[in-house]
Order: sequence, then C-alpha cells, then structure tokens
Amino acid sequence: MELGDIFEPVREDLARVEEELKSVSRVDSQWLSGLLDYGLQGGGKRIRPILALLAGKFHNYSLERLMPVAMSVELMHLATLVHDDTIDNSAVRWSRPTINELWGVEQAVLLGDYLFARAGRLAADTENVRVIKLFSQTLMIISSGEIAQAHSAFSLEQTRENYLQRIASKTASLFNLATESGAILSEAPEESIEILRDYGYNLGIAFQIVDDILDFTGTEEELGKPVGSDLTQGTLTLPAMLLLEHYPEDNPVKRLFENGDKQENIRLAIESIRNSPIIEECFEFASEYSSRACKRLKQLPDSASRQALVDLAEYIITRRK
Amino acid sequence: MELGDIFEPVREDLARVEEELKSVSRVDSQWLSGLLDYGLQGGGKRIRPILALLAGKFHNYSLERLMPVAMSVELMHLATLVHDDTIDNSAVRWSRPTINELWGVEQAVLLGDYLFARAGRLAADTENVRVIKLFSQTLMIISSGEIAQAHSAFSLEQTRENYLQRIASKTASLFNLATESGAILSEAPEESIEILRDYGYNLGIAFQIVDDILDFTGTEEELGKPVGSDLTQGTLTLPAMLLLEHYPEDNPVKRLFENGDKQENIRLAIESIRNSPIIEECFEFASEYSSRACKRLKQLPDSASRQALVDLAEYIITRRK
Repeated sequence: MELGDIFEPVREDLARVEEELKSVSRVDSQWLSGLLDYGLQGGGKRIRPILALLAGKFHNYSLERLMPVAMSVELMHLATLVHDDTIDNSAVRWSRPTINELWGVEQAVLLGDYLFARAGRLAADTENVRVIKLFSQTLMIISSGEIAQAHSAFSLEQTRENYLQRIASKTASLFNLATESGAILSEAPEESIEILRDYGYNLGIAFQIVDDILDFTGTEEELGKPVGSDLTQGTLTLPAMLLLEHYPEDNPVKRLFENGDKQENIRLAIESIRNSPIIEECFEFASEYSSRACKRLKQLPDSASRQALVDLAEYIITRRK
Repeated sequence: MELGDIFEPVREDLARVEEELKSVSRVDSQWLSGLLDYGLQGGGKRIRPILALLAGKFHNYSLERLMPVAMSVELMHLATLVHDDTIDNSAVRWSRPTINELWGVEQAVLLGDYLFARAGRLAADTENVRVIKLFSQTLMIISSGEIAQAHSAFSLEQTRENYLQRIASKTASLFNLATESGAILSEAPEESIEILRDYGYNLGIAFQIVDDILDFTGTEEELGKPVGSDLTQGTLTLPAMLLLEHYPEDNPVKRLFENGDKQENIRLAIESIRNSPIIEECFEFASEYSSRACKRLKQLPDSASRQALVDLAEYIITRRK
C-alpha cells in the first residue's frame, strides 16, 4: 500500500496544506526566502500534517482550524532536522546537500530557530491555549531528548528502556502532538482525544524503530542519505543494541564505540545485522507498537478516516523509505 | 547611577523572578539540569525582566501574571546568546567559558532550542493569546535579523539604515516585547501599551548602540569577553561604519573586511576609533534614542516606576559594561 492511497480522506486538504507551506517562504528578505524555499522543498512525506488532519475527522472537522496545526507540526519537524543535520555535520538528506552543507553552520542554526518561531506563531494562530501549551511542551521534550541522546553518544551503557525513552522524545512526541492537537481542534470529547493521542504516540514509536532498521537495511538511494548514519553519529539504535546483546564479546559496534576503525566497523556492523534474525526481531517490536496504536481505534466511529489510520499503521511498518 | 538603585520599585519582585529562574534548572535529567544551572548563572543584568515588571506598574500590577513573561524574556535572551556564541565560535562570555566552549556545538545548539521552548512554554502560561503571539513573532524577528546579519558579515556595502534595522531586530524587538507584554498583562489601555512599547523599542536601540561602542572602548574585564569581537565576526557596527565614512581610503576596517591581516587591522581599528570623535558621535546617536524613549512617558501617571524608566534610559547611555 502506498502512502498516497492512504490519505485519500484528506487528499484535497493536504494539497491545500502543501500550498500554504509553500507560502511560508514568502518573506521580505530575498535571502531568507531562498533558504526557506530550499528547506521546504525537501522530500518530506508530510506524515505529521496527515496525522493532524485525519485526527480532526472524528468530530467537528474544520480545515480552517486545523491548517495552522498541520503546518506547524511540519515546520517543527523540519526545524529539528535542520538542527540535527547541523550538529551531526550531515552533508546529505533527501538525496541533496543539507542546509549546513550549502550555507554553513551559522545559517543552519538560525534557519532552524526561525522555523521553530514560525511553528510557534502558527500554533498561536489556533488561539487555543491548550494546543499552544502542547506545542511548547513538545519542543521541550524533543530538545531535552536530543540533549540526552547527544550526551550518551558512543556509550555502550544503554538499555532498551533508554532507547524507548529517546525515540519517544524524539519522534513519538511530535506524532502525538499532531493527533492530539487535531482532535482538540475538532472539539472531540476527552476520551477521543486520548485515544487519538495514544495512537499518535505508539505510531511514532513504531515509525522510529522502522527508521532505525532502514538505516541498516536500506540503500543510500532509498534513504536519501548514507547507510549506517546512526552508528556514524554514535547513536545506539535497536538493531545495534540487539547485535551487542547477541554477540557481547567480539562485536563491531563495541569496537567502533571504543574508538576502533570507523569505516570498517560500521561496514561489519551493517553486514552482521543484515545477515541475522535481528532485523526480524526489530520488525516484531515495531509491529507490536503499530498494533498497540490501532487497538483502541475501534472505539471511534467507523469511517474512511479511521480506516486510513489503520492503514497508516500498516504502511509505517512495511515501508522501505 | 547604578542599575541596583534604579529598579527599587520592583526590587523584591525581581528577587522572586530570580528565584524562579533558578528553578528552571530543576529538571529530571541531571545532565540537562547542570547545563541549565550554568546557563542561568551567567552575569546577565536582567534588564528585560526589569522592563517587564516596571511596564506592568502603570495599571493593574500583578506579579503572578507578570512572572511568566519576566522569566520568558530572559530565557529567550539567554537562548539567543547561547546560539550566537555557538555560531560565532566565541569562547568567553561573562568572563567564563561559553557553553559551546565547554560542551561543544551539539549541546549548545540543543540547549538553546530547549531554552526557546521553555520561553515559549512560559509565554503560553500567561494564557493571553495576544502576548503569546508577540513572543513567537519576536523570535521570528530576532532570528531573521540574525540571518541577515550573518549574510552581510564582512560586507562593506551597508548603510546606517541597515545597521538600525539589524539592531532593531536583534535587540529592540526583545526590549519592546518585555514592555509591551508587561503593559498588556497589567490590563493597561491601548494608548499606554503603545507608549510603553515605543519606550522599550527606543531604549533597545540606544542600548545596542552603546553595546557596540563598548565593544571598542571597554576593557576585556569590563566586557567579560574580548574587545573588538564584533569586527572579529565581520559585523559592521556604528563605530566601524563611521570610521569608514570618515576615512574611506586607507582604513583598517576596509583592509580587514577585504581579507587583510586580522589581528593587526582590528588593533588599528580599535585605536583609530578610540582616538577620534567617532565615539562621541555614537553616544550622541544613542542619546537621541534614549531621549526618544522617554518623550511620551510623561503621558503616564507620575510614579516611582515612571521615574525608574527615565533613570534606566539615562543609565543605559552612561554604563561602562
């Protein structure tokens, strides 16, 4: 199943969100406008805006009310990517040079700040204080999670629990911000809000686990960036963690983190992980969260949008990029 | 006149703001807590919180309502400093190592993001949508201004108007955010809000011009960072601009920006500016904005707080650090 088939119930509205996102780069400064154009025309799947729109479909749906939130979650996501690439010194994303690669650290840090500000401004445009608070709270969770991740880089002392906490902060928080905000702005009752928030959260966990798998199993073309980049950054994701658990002694991840040959050990780690049952184990883990995401959806009224959420949970764990 | 004498009308409340700022570092992660502690215990003068409190004194003053705004403007200021130091690769501020110097670019970028998020969360705590919008709008102005400044680094093609625009974005915007928000949250009538916003704006311009002067005339001890750091970053401030206007031919700033010897030309520029009427000219410029700030204050009721605002405008242009 393709992502394009899944978001059918919000296809037209998503196209309008896309239009509005393009208009974000209409600013006075020509220089900033160019940076924004480049930043916005990457290869994002727009999953977060899709989630916000779909989550708004179960009560009083209003694109006008949802628009700022749909845009804001995407801009916040883009802002975190711009800063991530900068601090990771990544040269390529979406098969093209990153902002930091093209215009340097300075412009990239400041562009990220600007995108955070625009995201905040859009959240404020909802005029819903509960939603606004959720937005700033989420940025706190994301940045403190990233600080923890950076602090634990190249450390072997990490548990699965640490991993789950990290991906919850980094990814699930923004997914559940999208669904929770969409639900709140459709004036859904508290129970539905909770169901949709939990859906977003569990979907986010599943999404990130698969992302972490693809970093080992994908091709550079599929990923739009080098394979094994998590290991390059010293980020211990689930596949590498399982490799360490299965082969605690002679292990390329261990050697890499203990300052062994970088390229050779990354190559070996990728090879070992690909040729082991680890990938399957990881997918099972992701599937569990994907199922968990859908579990309470049946309490919501049956509709094309509910089916879309179920399909999205399926897509997330079968996607190749 | 010392700053400590000026804020007498809000002394006790400022001490409570200071206490609350300390509590910002009480977070679950010990690591993040340590970073925040260090970040918050710099040498800031807390001028922005003082402005928010004083501006709230002309109608229904409520520390409870003003507290989140007083904290938020300071955190936003700190966040911009953390990012500025990072992209400028500055090693020293407030006579101690910067965050980026101690913990690297990665932690500094993310800590700045976290501080922006906390500032946003505090702004949201006011539950006043107008104030919340002003906050995100201000961060947009600051970051787009910084992007323009970075883009024009080492360019000689800059007018005084460009300079004023730059310092308006970078500094005045946050000053007038503080006074405008303080006024709004004290339920002041629109006219008073406008008077206090304009006061903050003009004071901010005066403040930044003096900052730019001190970067040439101060000592490293007074400044808490190296003298001439603006030139080192390729930032053309008013004193350097005037030096270029007065001596367009053989000029150390010109040579520096055209890739001449860095240390020698900065030394010569500092010397030339110090031994010329340029400093006086710049102070006159700053005084003009300081007077402009006070012009409409007499339309507000006479009070100790009004006098404090007048004294602050005087302090700003006579301070040595």
